[in-house]
Formats: sequence, structure tokens, C-alpha cells
Amino acid sequence: MRSMSALIESAALSDFIAALGDDAVISDPEALHEWRDPFAHPTWDDYTASAVVLPATVEQVQDVVRIANRHGVALWTHSTGRNFGYGGPAPRVRGSVIVSLRRMDRVLEIDEECAYAVVEPGVRWFDLYEAIQAGGHRLMLSIADLGWGSVIGNTLDHGVTYMPYGVDMGMQCGMEVVLPDGTLMRTGMGAMPGNRSWNVYKRGLGPTPDQLFMQSNYGIVTKMGVWLMPEPEVYMPLWLRVWRDDDLGPVIDTLRVLMLEGTIRMVPQLMNTMLLGAVLSKRSDWFAGEGPMPNEAIDRMARELEIGRWCMRFALYGDEAVVDHRFAKIREAFGRIPGAEVWGTKVAPKDIPSLEHPAERIQGGVPNLDWNNMTAWYGGEEGGHIGFSPVGRLTGADGIALRDLLRGMVQDAGLDYIAGLLPVNARSFVHITMVIFDTKDLAQTTAAYDVSRRLVVEAAKRGYGEYRAHLDFMDLAAEQYSFNDHAYRRFTETIKDALDPNGILSPGKQGIWPVRLRPER
Amino acid sequence: MRSMSALIESAALSDFIAALGDDAVISDPEALHEWRDPFAHPTWDDYTASAVVLPATVEQVQDVVRIANRHGVALWTHSTGRNFGYGGPAPRVRGSVIVSLRRMDRVLEIDEECAYAVVEPGVRWFDLYEAIQAGGHRLMLSIADLGWGSVIGNTLDHGVTYMPYGVDMGMQCGMEVVLPDGTLMRTGMGAMPGNRSWNVYKRGLGPTPDQLFMQSNYGIVTKMGVWLMPEPEVYMPLWLRVWRDDDLGPVIDTLRVLMLEGTIRMVPQLMNTMLLGAVLSKRSDWFAGEGPMPNEAIDRMARELEIGRWCMRFALYGDEAVVDHRFAKIREAFGRIPGAEVWGTKVAPKDIPSLEHPAERIQGGVPNLDWNNMTAWYGGEEGGHIGFSPVGRLTGADGIALRDLLRGMVQDAGLDYIAGLLPVNARSFVHITMVIFDTKDLAQTTAAYDVSRRLVVEAAKRGYGEYRAHLDFMDLAAEQYSFNDHAYRRFTETIKDALDPNGILSPGKQGIWPVRLRPER
Repeated sequence: MRSMSALIESAALSDFIAALGDDAVISDPEALHEWRDPFAHPTWDDYTASAVVLPATVEQVQDVVRIANRHGVALWTHSTGRNFGYGGPAPRVRGSVIVSLRRMDRVLEIDEECAYAVVEPGVRWFDLYEAIQAGGHRLMLSIADLGWGSVIGNTLDHGVTYMPYGVDMGMQCGMEVVLPDGTLMRTGMGAMPGNRSWNVYKRGLGPTPDQLFMQSNYGIVTKMGVWLMPEPEVYMPLWLRVWRDDDLGPVIDTLRVLMLEGTIRMVPQLMNTMLLGAVLSKRSDWFAGEGPMPNEAIDRMARELEIGRWCMRFALYGDEAVVDHRFAKIREAFGRIPGAEVWGTKVAPKDIPSLEHPAERIQGGVPNLDWNNMTAWYGGEEGGHIGFSPVGRLTGADGIALRDLLRGMVQDAGLDYIAGLLPVNARSFVHITMVIFDTKDLAQTTAAYDVSRRLVVEAAKRGYGEYRAHLDFMDLAAEQYSFNDHAYRRFTETIKDALDPNGILSPGKQGIWPVRLRPER
Repeated sequence: MRSMSALIESAALSDFIAALGDDAVISDPEALHEWRDPFAHPTWDDYTASAVVLPATVEQVQDVVRIANRHGVALWTHSTGRNFGYGGPAPRVRGSVIVSLRRMDRVLEIDEECAYAVVEPGVRWFDLYEAIQAGGHRLMLSIADLGWGSVIGNTLDHGVTYMPYGVDMGMQCGMEVVLPDGTLMRTGMGAMPGNRSWNVYKRGLGPTPDQLFMQSNYGIVTKMGVWLMPEPEVYMPLWLRVWRDDDLGPVIDTLRVLMLEGTIRMVPQLMNTMLLGAVLSKRSDWFAGEGPMPNEAIDRMARELEIGRWCMRFALYGDEAVVDHRFAKIREAFGRIPGAEVWGTKVAPKDIPSLEHPAERIQGGVPNLDWNNMTAWYGGEEGGHIGFSPVGRLTGADGIALRDLLRGMVQDAGLDYIAGLLPVNARSFVHITMVIFDTKDLAQTTAAYDVSRRLVVEAAKRGYGEYRAHLDFMDLAAEQYSFNDHAYRRFTETIKDALDPNGILSPGKQGIWPVRLRPER
């Protein structure tokens, strides 16, 4: 782990207080505790911030950036800081000042006619959902698994959502950004004063920079357009269950055909027994021994929880006649896999909040926190996880190859293989490996970090790259993208130095370092 | 018009010849004639190149860029140069060396399993279509109106295609780029050696630069992934016809609802009488007088060609049962507009090439050139057009407002209002105004340029910005995107200077100037 440090001087702190007010600057070490990576071991402090600033307006964000430039302070931006499994609210560089945008929590606009909202970074899935309901809009929001996350924050980290607009993150349209020098910029049609197409047309004249502000450290996004889906006639949450571990292959190949032809158009979640099992139960319910849970215990979980060896949550949205046609087609297609079962129930959109299963509410755009249970797998309240998340082609062969590689390595480290495959479009999936551990158990925590580090390298050797990296593995993950002597990293760092010559904004984010902090490589 | 000039020196020319061979460098003034904007008046030479170089390999593209840096030569890249209506193959800066990628015309890969192709920039719609047919793949390609265009070139200029992947240009995935310093970079998962997800997952780790290479001058794209659609059970080209000019409003409002709910999922083309009339006939068939064609003559055209005052080409793709359901719904929805008619015929994909109407082949992915007829509207073979193309919200109110503004100004200039509205997604449309003129008629050509220039400014005053600009209006169009003292332009030029410090690559493209050529503003 990098031991870089950038402890803040009192002069800078005074300037932040003068600009934002006393209550918007936190520097007491005790109070800073809640801004650590919640899953880091309590004895570790590699990613501890010096202070947190909480701007409430765009102007205050500009002030913060200007003060940081003046004093050479490293900032680290988050929206709400719920980036759990990847480092939470904590900065890459020890001693950075966290710029938390939690107080910028306004839903600025909901446009019923063109079906979109404009939000600030502190707006959570819960907040936007509630604003849509309060306004009586018949619009649905594609949400992430955990409702406490920021709409903007999730988008900026390439986070996944599950409804049709979740495919390839189709929902973002238009951004306002504070650049590292404090300049306020609007992208796309927003660059034209008075242009009302900002949040309906995804581009402008000239190159489109929006994607450049995702997984980077080039600016602080202060407003974003989010597309909403008109309520369909029918919502039909669906489940697929198969009983053999190797059914994963034919399930993926069947799914790809159904997604390519548009029969399924959303982001499914294909879970192994232990992922869904960890939501519904604890490890000790099934196995009390040391080391990875044996196959027999997994089979028992699969049977007794009735979740199979692989289970897929997915859904249909649309006119009832179309949904009926598609459901029949889906059941027939998966029916060719021996023992596979597909089921689901049609509901009207108004009835989604009362659905019992949290997955059925998540896919229906009703935020909750139930999916969070899984990190308590090893018992207690102190469960943590690292997300190791390589991307593969949506083929059975790639699914099986990744399963074999990751399961083998995770089990060799004495941990359980807890996996969710998310086909983010019809051609590829993100394989989320939940490396779950008890954060109070130093040996287990260390083993989890060690195996995650090895996974980054071994997966890359086989051509599988991470879609998003944990603080601890950002440099290592970026290191794997080495085509032509790291042409891509040189490109991103050339842009970094041009936009942020003092290197103040989120240094090290996704392996992008400004010149003043760039490591020897 | 900018009178900048950058005539090439013989030393640079010799280096290009040494690198590429004699037959790959054109500098004879006579031979350069075919590389002009085909619609510019013959007496104009503001955009005349000094030479054309025709690299055939990636390495030769790198050589060209390095030679240009050595000699300070301005390059201007095109793929096939069919950017008609926006300047064709011609460079922004007089005397630039055109880098034509026509010889890089290989279809490198067609992946049946994950339904995509990888192409070089010289590959035209015709070529990729033929490669798909020759390989016996049951895949369809979303194409532009004219089959001679480059797949990559069209994508890089935000050009529109019409099938489901044409929505928000969903079809691009993965790029290889030669940067202005000659570095070869691959984007997304292509940045990892041996990663097979390059053309199936749209991002990588870190910021996604692909959109940055569209409508810009930051690099030369040498390879690109293109998503293909599996052949549906049924293709159903559709037509909508309405008889009153003001029906435009309710047509758009109805269309938005159908697109938002996913009943229509492709890019329709909503044409006024004269646009479709210009494809099917000549102006002299209807009116022999001076000035804009009067309303009575337009009505006669509408009746006799049976195309109505507005006519929309669109289509359904999918399982027959779903297509039938959707067709009934569409007919019912538009049926609420008095006099509106909707019709169409279902065909199997194999029968698309034999469809009589070119639009039905275009929407079915079978390339042709028939749509090109329209520029001969004023007679002769020498018709030209300027594309003036502002973006609006997909609402009846915006459609009517733009029609009134553009029609009024074009008619005041003595020209006909020839309009096609392209809803590139469910929330916005590009209003293509075909400012058609006889390129042999200097007065008419000048009037067309003058009114186009005024349109840029007047539309922007009302909040409508161009999606793409003609060489002559690039600076003026970019000038309109002035939010916060041109923050966006400063951002794009900061990146330009960082990536291309010698300012060699396509200076002035979409109003982005390198520091050495940047105008006083």
C-alpha cells in the first residue's frame, strides 16, 4: 500500500472554514473516524483523511477547489461516500481533504414530458424516488442495489443499475462540472446558454466529455441529468433457478441470445448459491468448520433455501401482451436446460412497493437496504467485503473460465466464493466477486486483501480486466491496462496535467496520478 | 470565411512520398480538384488542400503524423470523405494535407456469437454489408442514408443511422487511435493486452475516451467495433402520412410517447413534403417560378405524390406477435390525429433487398444511394446542399417553433424549406434543414450560405444548437456554445494543446483550434 501522506496545514484549514463556515469543516480525528473505509481493519490508517469539507453550493465547491490550489492541498471527492467494497468515502492519498457533497442534495427538476430529472450529487436513490412519488409522476427510476447510494456517485464510478436504462448506463444525460481550476462547465447542449436540450440529447457540438468525468479525477460533477422510464402497463419480476454448478454455461449462452434479440432488456443478476444465501442467511446456519464451505453444504443451502446452485433475478417491463409473449419465450428457452425453472408474477407498477422480496423491489425501482445483509455472512455486525469485478464476454465459456479461476483462488485463500454476474449489456458481464470477511479478524481480512491483489493479476493474465477498482488495488488494476507501453495511462495523465497542473483533485483515482505525485514506474 | 493558409513545403512532400510511396501522395492541383467540397461554388478555394496522402496501414498513419510534426504541416483526416452537406472531404484550413483513409478498407472481424464487427476507417456501409452477407451471418447493420459513407467516419461525426442501435449511436464499442504524437492507443478493455471484451463492453478502467474522438481533432481512429443486430423474425417498415402542415405538433407528441414506452425503438425520419418530394421528383415538375415554392404547389405535390404534408418513415423489428401488437398500438395512437394514415407490410429479413422503396431498404440495413437524388431538386446534376441541423426536445411545441423559424428564414432567402426531423432518441430530435441550391448558380449558392450563417445565430438565440456544423460555419456554431465565457471551448482547447502541442491534427475542426492557429476572439 502506498504510504503517501499530505497532512493539511492550519492555514488551509482556516481558509476552508472562512469559505464554508465552521460546521462545514471536520478535522477532529475522532470525528474523522466515520470517513474511513468501513471495511478496512481498525488498525490500518493508509487512507485516513486530514479533514472533511461539506460544501452546500456550487460556488462553495469552486471556493474549495481554489483554496486547494492556493495551498497545494490534495482533495478527494465523493458524492455520498457509499462506495462500499471499493474504499467507501476514504481518499487514495493519506491526509487528503475529503470533499463530501452530501449537503448538495436537491432534486432540481423532474420533467414529466421528456421523462428526466436533474439532481445534485448528494441526492440518494431514496431521495429521487421519494421526489418522483411526491410529485405524482408516473415515472420509474433505475436504481442500484442499495438505496443509500448517490445517483451521481454511482454513475461516476460506472456503478450498475438494473432497469432498461441501466443497460450500458443509458440514463445519464448532461453534466455540470467544476474543473480543477474552479471553472464551471456544462457539457453537451448545456454549453449553450438557454438551451433546453441539455438533458434530452446526449451530445453537443464537438467532443462529448461526460464519460471523461466518470472514474477519473478531472472535475467535480455538481449537476447531472437522469433519464426516467414511464411506468409500463406491467412489471414482471422473474426468477431462474438451476441445480448444477455447471449449468452456468448454458444459462449464460441462453441469456445472451435472449438479450441480443431484445426479449430481455435490463440488467439481470445471476447469483451463485452463496451470494443469495448470504442475503437470506448466515454461514453458521450451514457450516461451522474452517476454510471454504464444502460442496455438500452448498448443495444443502441450495435445496433448503430453494435458491439452486445458480439463481437469476431479472424482469420484464411493458404491455401485458408483450410481457406474456416474452415470458413464454424465456421459459421455453431456459427450459432446454435440464431441471431449470423460471417463474414470476405480473404486477401493476403501483404495487411494487409492497412486493416482499427486496430484489423484486430493486428491479422495480423501489430502493431499500436489504441487499446489504450479505456482508454479515461470517457473523456479527462487522462484516466487510472487497469487490473484485472483472469483465467478460457474455458467453458460457467465459463465465465458466472466470468461475473456475476465481473460485479456485478464493478458496485457496480459505474464503468462500460468493459471486454475482451482471450482464450490463447483451454482450458482456461484470463478474462481481464478493470477497467477504470479518473486519474484526485481522488474519481473515489480510487473507482477503492478499487474494484480491493476486486476483487482479491472474485475471488480467487471462485477458479479464476490472470494471472498477478498490482503493488498495487501483494502481495494480490500472497497471494491467498496459497496451503499447501504457499508452492509455499516458493519455489520461497528459489530460490530468493539462486540466489540473497543481495536482489537487483526487490524486491516484483509478491509477491516474498528477505529475507532482506520480510514482516511479 | 477564414483565409488561413498552410501550403506544404517540398521537403515535407518528399518525406510523405518516402514513407508511403509515390502512388499514395497526390499534389497535382488538377487531381486535387476531386478533394474539394463538392458543393462549394467552383470559384471558391477557401478549403483547398495542398496534398492528399493515402496511408494503407496503421504504421503509415503513424508515419504521416510524425512527418507532420517534424515539418509543422496541418493535416485534415477523413475516412472516406463523404461528409456531404458539411464540407465533404475538404479541410478547414486551406493548404492542409488531407489524410484520406480510403485505402484502410478491411473488415477485420465479424463475431457471430457476440454480434459485432471490427472495421478500418475506409470500410463503407456497402462493404460491411457485403462482408456480413458473404460470411452468411444472420446479422443486420444499422446504416446511414447513403451507402457510400464510412462506418467510422459517420460515427465520428455523430452521424445518424436508423435501426435500434442507431438510437444515441449505441453501436460503437472500442477504438484504436493514433494520437497526434504518433502513439497508438486502444480504448476501453482494448487497453489490456489480450482482453477479448474490447468490442463488447463499452468502458474500461478509468475514464472512457471514445466520445472524445468524435467531432474532434484529438486523434485518428484506425479501428472501431460496431455492434450488429441479430436478424429479427419480422421486419415491418412503416409509413405515417398527415395532410396539414400543423399536424407536425401532434405527430411529434404522439411519437414521443410511443418512443418513451419503447413501442418504437429506432430512429424515424419525419419529412416534409419537399424532402420526400425531392427524392421522388424535381422542382420543375411542380413550380416554374422564382422564389420559394408556394403553398398551393406544395399541397399539389403532397396529393399527387401521395406523401402528405408530413410523412414519416419508421419501422418495427422483432417477433411477429410483438410487431403485430405494436403496429395496432401505433395505428391507434396516430389515428387520433384527423386524417392521419399509418401503413406497412411485414417481411422476412431475407426479403429486404428486394423491397422497392429505398427508405424501406435503408431502415432494413441494405445500403443504397437513392436518397441522394434530392440534391438535384433545382435541376441538373450539380445540386448541392448545406445541412443546417439544430437539436430540439422531442415535443410538438419545439417542432413547430423550429419549423416556423427555419421556414421563415429560408423562404425569406428565396429558397425552399426542405426538412427532415430525426428523433435520435425518445426525448430529442435533430432537425435537418436541407438548404439545397444549384452549385452552378452563384447568386443562389451565396444566398444559401448567407441564410445558413444567419440560421446558426438565430436558432441559438432561441436555445437550439447544431449537432454538427459545416466547414464554413464551424467557428460560428461553436461560438454559440458560450456558457460561462466559453468554458467548454477552453476545456476542449486545453486538451487539444496537451495532446497536440504542435497543432498538426485537423486544426479548426468543430471550432477547436490549437494554440499556434487560435484566432483572436
